[in-house]
Amino acid sequence: MGGDHGPRVTLAACRRFLDEHADARLLLVGLPEALQGFAHERATLVHASEVVTMEDPVEIALRRKKDSSMRVAIQQVKDGSAAAAVSAGNTGALMAIARYVLKTLDGIDRPAIASQLPNATGGSTTVLDLGANVDCTEHHLLQFAVMGSALDSVLKGKEQPTVGLLNIGAEAIKGSEVIKKAGDLLRTAANSGNLNFVGNVEGNDIFKGTTDIVVCDGFVGNVALKTSEGLAYMVSTFLKQEFSRNIFTKISAIVAYPVLSAFKKRLDHRRYNGAALLGLRGLVFKSHGSADEVAFGQALNRAYDAARNNLLDRVRRRIASAAPFLLPASAPAETGQAPAPF
Amino acid sequence: MGGDHGPRVTLAACRRFLDEHADARLLLVGLPEALQGFAHERATLVHASEVVTMEDPVEIALRRKKDSSMRVAIQQVKDGSAAAAVSAGNTGALMAIARYVLKTLDGIDRPAIASQLPNATGGSTTVLDLGANVDCTEHHLLQFAVMGSALDSVLKGKEQPTVGLLNIGAEAIKGSEVIKKAGDLLRTAANSGNLNFVGNVEGNDIFKGTTDIVVCDGFVGNVALKTSEGLAYMVSTFLKQEFSRNIFTKISAIVAYPVLSAFKKRLDHRRYNGAALLGLRGLVFKSHGSADEVAFGQALNRAYDAARNNLLDRVRRRIASAAPFLLPASAPAETGQAPAPF
Repeated sequence: MGGDHGPRVTLAACRRFLDEHADARLLLVGLPEALQGFAHERATLVHASEVVTMEDPVEIALRRKKDSSMRVAIQQVKDGSAAAAVSAGNTGALMAIARYVLKTLDGIDRPAIASQLPNATGGSTTVLDLGANVDCTEHHLLQFAVMGSALDSVLKGKEQPTVGLLNIGAEAIKGSEVIKKAGDLLRTAANSGNLNFVGNVEGNDIFKGTTDIVVCDGFVGNVALKTSEGLAYMVSTFLKQEFSRNIFTKISAIVAYPVLSAFKKRLDHRRYNGAALLGLRGLVFKSHGSADEVAFGQALNRAYDAARNNLLDRVRRRIASAAPFLLPASAPAETGQAPAPF
Repeated sequence: MGGDHGPRVTLAACRRFLDEHADARLLLVGLPEALQGFAHERATLVHASEVVTMEDPVEIALRRKKDSSMRVAIQQVKDGSAAAAVSAGNTGALMAIARYVLKTLDGIDRPAIASQLPNATGGSTTVLDLGANVDCTEHHLLQFAVMGSALDSVLKGKEQPTVGLLNIGAEAIKGSEVIKKAGDLLRTAANSGNLNFVGNVEGNDIFKGTTDIVVCDGFVGNVALKTSEGLAYMVSTFLKQEFSRNIFTKISAIVAYPVLSAFKKRLDHRRYNGAALLGLRGLVFKSHGSADEVAFGQALNRAYDAARNNLLDRVRRRIASAAPFLLPASAPAETGQAPAPF
């Protein structure tokens, strides 16, 4: 039901997904009138009587709309009927409902939002947290590093992906108190072989691809992500303006068209759609609200890959092996904090 | 003496600057051997016996190298011999020495680094702090807003430039505790007519150009700046790769050359070189270390414009008029904090 375009886009993407993955089954959760007309031998319609809107505060979504499509979909994961849930709806509500219904894994205080961003090496960088947790302790950052390593190893098939801690300088003495303590914790975990921590990285390292994973708090991650969205928009605006300036530039645009479209394709943010909500006892993926059919299909693919590759078990195992380092934040004394306000 | 290329670049930029500004005079501060051979009727050579290196910790730069070119240059400002100092050297050392020699203005606890970034409207967005202050209180953020408004009014000739508070959502309830309190403070100052505060902005608003000024703490600002540098690098790498793929794409590159170079020029970071160290009792500008002659010349231009337009008086006047709101942070109880570790 979610996203700027609703079922028109999501159902079309689902049909294509089913055509491309002969072993996949989909549970389509939504209002009966939205789903009617969709028929596929590997699709099951699951009805919900309510929809969480983009404007709904978390409390309304969580307490008043108990039969929302979002909640029903996540309940399918909880019940074991679905291997993963995918939504293009309200991020705050999705995170809150997922956390309430599925609960966090042992050793994890707070789920994090992780996504892949393209980098100059031609690969991708996994960045987390992208906005679920505004204030983080060093223990949360370590948990993100562990969860991000599990996700990245599934996505890239690399057993020990490299982790960088986002900071404002490469030296260990740089940054806030939390960042310095997080650096110490990550180094300790790395020395025991539980993490491939390479040290501090800076903002430019995300798109350079210096490390497989970049760990940061949700405030910083969200600003970095949205700043790059803004820059990408500006760059494409300038490029369009320059190519449409006069008849000569328009002709060059026609000549350069194949190159420009290859370039555009490489930067196409739709290819990177589908953020993982990590740290929960179930797989939940978030599509960008503005996703079109291709982008939403990509979010479905990510969920499919994560489920097939047992992401949940991998996260669990990594957390278990890193348990000695994770303990402090999981102790009752520190988990009494209010949940992140998203 | 500073920057990756040293006097070869800085002196060449100085010569060009003098040629372009018939009313300007330069004091060139450095090692005698580096300056020898530079002669111009409006240039005075000022000798220093030491140089702060990029690797020098702040303590060494501040306590051991008392006759460094950086220190001597800032002393010229302190003594009234120079209207502004420009350096391409070690940022942390420059900030520490400037703060030590010049002191902060009344009402300002911490200087901030402010720079202009291009935006999609074709203008520029003033962003601060870009890395001088890792942990900020709401009062510091208000001070940045006031200082940024003064700088922006000088640069754009706009009396009441708009101010946005960098956050992870437009709603006032979003963000960390400090951000929420800063929002309240900024709104109060705006209601009294001391600030043109328009509310929260998100990362993408920096390059969209939603507001004239974007205020944030130095950690977030530094990450946003460097992330965009990384993305710009990746975009230009991809564009080059696509245009040099084969003989056909190379021909399109030749056809599109005028457009591509106009595009490149619009994004040229050298045009935005020259960050202001605001909040000091004197004007100090920082050039990027990697600056070439054009970029360093731009930093000189910024310092020249700031001096001609009495930036310092404007900052002072704005601070004075905003004094009722600035008071809490200037009270002794809260200024006992350790200086920012840069």
